[in-house]
Amino acid sequence: MVVERGFGSYLFGMSDKIARQATEAKDANNIKDPHLGWMIGFLFLVSFIGLLALVPLRKIMIVDYKLTYPSGTATAYLINGFHTPEGAKLAKKQVKTLGKYFVFSFFWGFFQWFYTAGDDCGFKNFPTLGLEAYKHRFFFDFSPTYVGVGMICPYIVNVSVLLGGILSWGVMWPLIAKKKGSWYPADVGDSSLHGLQAYRVFISIALILGDGLYNFIKVLIRTIAGFITMVQQNSKSMLPVSDISSSMSTAEAVSFDEERRTELFLKDQIPKSVAYGGYVAVAAISIGTLPQIFPQLKWYYILVAYVVAPVLAFCNAYGSGLTDWSLASTYGKLAIFVFSAWAGLAHGGVLVGLAACGVMMSIVSTASDLMQDFKTGYLTLASPRSMFISQVIGTGMGCVIVPCVFWLFYKAFGDIGESGTEYPAPYAIVYRNMAILGVDGFGSLPKNCLTLCYIFFAVAIAINLVRDLAPQRVSRFIPLPMAMAIPFYIGSYFAIDMFLGSAILFVWARLNKAKADAFGPAVASGLICGDGIWTLPQSILALAKVNPPICMKFLSRATNAKVDSFLGLS
Amino acid sequence: MVVERGFGSYLFGMSDKIARQATEAKDANNIKDPHLGWMIGFLFLVSFIGLLALVPLRKIMIVDYKLTYPSGTATAYLINGFHTPEGAKLAKKQVKTLGKYFVFSFFWGFFQWFYTAGDDCGFKNFPTLGLEAYKHRFFFDFSPTYVGVGMICPYIVNVSVLLGGILSWGVMWPLIAKKKGSWYPADVGDSSLHGLQAYRVFISIALILGDGLYNFIKVLIRTIAGFITMVQQNSKSMLPVSDISSSMSTAEAVSFDEERRTELFLKDQIPKSVAYGGYVAVAAISIGTLPQIFPQLKWYYILVAYVVAPVLAFCNAYGSGLTDWSLASTYGKLAIFVFSAWAGLAHGGVLVGLAACGVMMSIVSTASDLMQDFKTGYLTLASPRSMFISQVIGTGMGCVIVPCVFWLFYKAFGDIGESGTEYPAPYAIVYRNMAILGVDGFGSLPKNCLTLCYIFFAVAIAINLVRDLAPQRVSRFIPLPMAMAIPFYIGSYFAIDMFLGSAILFVWARLNKAKADAFGPAVASGLICGDGIWTLPQSILALAKVNPPICMKFLSRATNAKVDSFLGLS
Repeated sequence: MVVERGFGSYLFGMSDKIARQATEAKDANNIKDPHLGWMIGFLFLVSFIGLLALVPLRKIMIVDYKLTYPSGTATAYLINGFHTPEGAKLAKKQVKTLGKYFVFSFFWGFFQWFYTAGDDCGFKNFPTLGLEAYKHRFFFDFSPTYVGVGMICPYIVNVSVLLGGILSWGVMWPLIAKKKGSWYPADVGDSSLHGLQAYRVFISIALILGDGLYNFIKVLIRTIAGFITMVQQNSKSMLPVSDISSSMSTAEAVSFDEERRTELFLKDQIPKSVAYGGYVAVAAISIGTLPQIFPQLKWYYILVAYVVAPVLAFCNAYGSGLTDWSLASTYGKLAIFVFSAWAGLAHGGVLVGLAACGVMMSIVSTASDLMQDFKTGYLTLASPRSMFISQVIGTGMGCVIVPCVFWLFYKAFGDIGESGTEYPAPYAIVYRNMAILGVDGFGSLPKNCLTLCYIFFAVAIAINLVRDLAPQRVSRFIPLPMAMAIPFYIGSYFAIDMFLGSAILFVWARLNKAKADAFGPAVASGLICGDGIWTLPQSILALAKVNPPICMKFLSRATNAKVDSFLGLS
Repeated sequence: MVVERGFGSYLFGMSDKIARQATEAKDANNIKDPHLGWMIGFLFLVSFIGLLALVPLRKIMIVDYKLTYPSGTATAYLINGFHTPEGAKLAKKQVKTLGKYFVFSFFWGFFQWFYTAGDDCGFKNFPTLGLEAYKHRFFFDFSPTYVGVGMICPYIVNVSVLLGGILSWGVMWPLIAKKKGSWYPADVGDSSLHGLQAYRVFISIALILGDGLYNFIKVLIRTIAGFITMVQQNSKSMLPVSDISSSMSTAEAVSFDEERRTELFLKDQIPKSVAYGGYVAVAAISIGTLPQIFPQLKWYYILVAYVVAPVLAFCNAYGSGLTDWSLASTYGKLAIFVFSAWAGLAHGGVLVGLAACGVMMSIVSTASDLMQDFKTGYLTLASPRSMFISQVIGTGMGCVIVPCVFWLFYKAFGDIGESGTEYPAPYAIVYRNMAILGVDGFGSLPKNCLTLCYIFFAVAIAINLVRDLAPQRVSRFIPLPMAMAIPFYIGSYFAIDMFLGSAILFVWARLNKAKADAFGPAVASGLICGDGIWTLPQSILALAKVNPPICMKFLSRATNAKVDSFLGLS
């Protein structure tokens, strides 16, 4: 699941057109207009490194941590369905179930589309729990994808997500909103990083970073410990890149299927030398050439970005493994903020921030997407090496095709990026404004925001420690900070979808355990894939400028009366 | 299912308050203000006769014609559910299914309620098939009642209803609408009886009258033929009031349940002397006393009304047996029109029309309600005689309680009936205007309306003749004119609900015939009863002035853009 990424945001945010719409930083030092040549070059430099960043950690993510990666799992079920061996009756039935829910989910997406002729229209904005709750983003948004995700994710993840939503949107944000005028200026909009939005973005980042860093360090320590033990024993000749914590997987009974999957997944290795060497090589090239494209982007900025990137990529891959949400744009915002502040306005801080955002977002999102694909590959017994190679080819193609498409639009529509036109590129303005905010430094964050961030960073680590130290019967009831953090920023609506999905599965399992176990994943996969495939015709409709005809709008009683009298209905 | 009947319409339409809001007929001769005394008297005079009108025909309706009366059937299932004998496993399962769908339907009604904060809001106005189709009343309105009704009704009824809807709202009305300005004045609203609405109301009445009259005469001829045969044979000592067409029922294999039901239903007779004698007595009293209340209402008007009433009551009971719609208000409108025209403005025609409407509506609706109850009684093995007596007691109570409640409101809210206030009584104005139209005579009907009525009257009879003369394998595919006529006036949305219900049952029966047969009626009854019971708390909420909070509105793309800019959203 990708939100607001790429050309619409950071790249276009560098342009003169967008700069003219902002309040400051309109000097040439902070502006770079789009051009086909440097865009392709830039993408080639930043896109591949994400593929390499997490390859060595894939065994930990998929085999040891057994992360769900709901989208990846669903895709795997779909693919496996095409290869059902004849005569396997249960498998056939599962495929039939999958197909049924696939079709349902697809047509539900199609049906919903008709009622979305406006920004706040359609089932995605259905105030299922009332208008007041909707304002705080508590509603069921009728998304089959997240109901399916909820059915695939473990209960603790769903509960954590819902808990996080209630804690943030139900308690914290309303409380902070009361401080309007004292903690932050009363005249800024809700979506401004000078106001409430800052708390949402940075506190969720703090939680995620705390959790991610804890797990990263835990893995690192175990790896080193395992490495030392192995060197001492001096027994094995070949070192699988990530053969640590094998004690974790042996603790549980492993099914035949799983054994076979793990075997195949580990057999076809991507040599660690390729991974590490590739990362260093691409990083070196980037450090050498990126300053050629952006003279403001000093080599040490890029170095720091490439040192920190794997940790953030790990955080994101871990989080999306739990909940299916890739928060790449959130990490991008963090990068904007940090690097803009570091460079400062005089040294082209705005441009530095936006470029760093591009670097970070690419790495972080590619890494988590790749991990989703590895999960699919693991479940479908695909060779990780050929998957990796395909991914490299695909990325290369994307680096050429995507800028060309953008260039086509940019040249065809002269007014692209002007607000009020058909393609206003609102995110470009938002991203540029964030960079401007970053240039002003941490001091520009609203009051207590940084303090709260420190607290939540510490809380995330503390919860993880408790989870690891407490006995299993206690720890399984302790929520996961990573899962809790995601609704902090996004809102609880997807948490409610997921919770519904897990509630359905729970009731189903109570009624008929065998059936729920056999068909639950098939139903979930059908729901996820059908909705996913629908986005394809939806995009085609959007490109062909076929607009949905109807707006299903939700108005309060008073507003409705006003609208009715405006329309002359009553 | 009752629409717009009673105090809100014809009785209050007589008042000075409403007269002042109309264009003509404001003389004292055409006005009668409400008063507790005469209202109770009037209701006593007109309410009981409906109970007597169709009692002799109940065997024909229920045992011979085997009409479904979906609401009655559903209620019977619910009641039977409470008396399931212990150990009957299937029955228990059926009750569980019924309960499940009852709860679902109830809470669905509750959920829908939240989104109805306005006239055109909520799921009842969901343009499921697009806004254009919605304008022509083609949409699925998410009513569990009619989905359930569709599951209980025979396929041919559902198909007929849908066909009628397509023929009228899909073909005829749009064609007639094109004649706007030539067939009828261009400046009248769609709901005016001077415009399109006249075609809707009178053509549907013509179809219903044609079908009803055909069946009434058919029954009459058979009754007489049976009577003659019996007198000739001179064999039976006691004459069951409606022991005709026994050949119909013996033609089919009769189950033990059915045999027992029929036996009980016929055992506990209401003597025909009570029925006929009662009818004549009540009619005589009415003829004597009603002119005391309304001096304008001459005795021969009432006599004619009481002669015609049983035919119309038969039509309505027959129609509601097929489709669950009681069209009492339509017959009321017919009465307004005919009697107003007959009396003329100078002789208080408006008042005569409204009073005749009250008489006709009471008889026609009571008769069909009673028949629904007889169906319930038939299926639950209740004694028809005690049901009849209960109904008499209930009617008596209603005649006192209802005017008192109205009187309470009338005295408590001084501005009741004024347009623009909380209780504007819009139907009272509509009904009075219809009476004014009637005073102006048939000539005031739009062009070709009467011709079309004659044609459809003839078509209804012709279709019935073909149905009766053609061999069964052909006739079972010929639609029923009575069922076709109902969407002519109301629109196709309930036809779509019913069609969906029958489609569900059809698919279910294809997948698992035994299960569909066993549980179909339980599901349908649950849906109907749950929705029905929900109207109770809904009414309480309305009385307590608890308004739904949200309006779910459907706007076209263009309108939505206008509204958004009005609300300052974009």
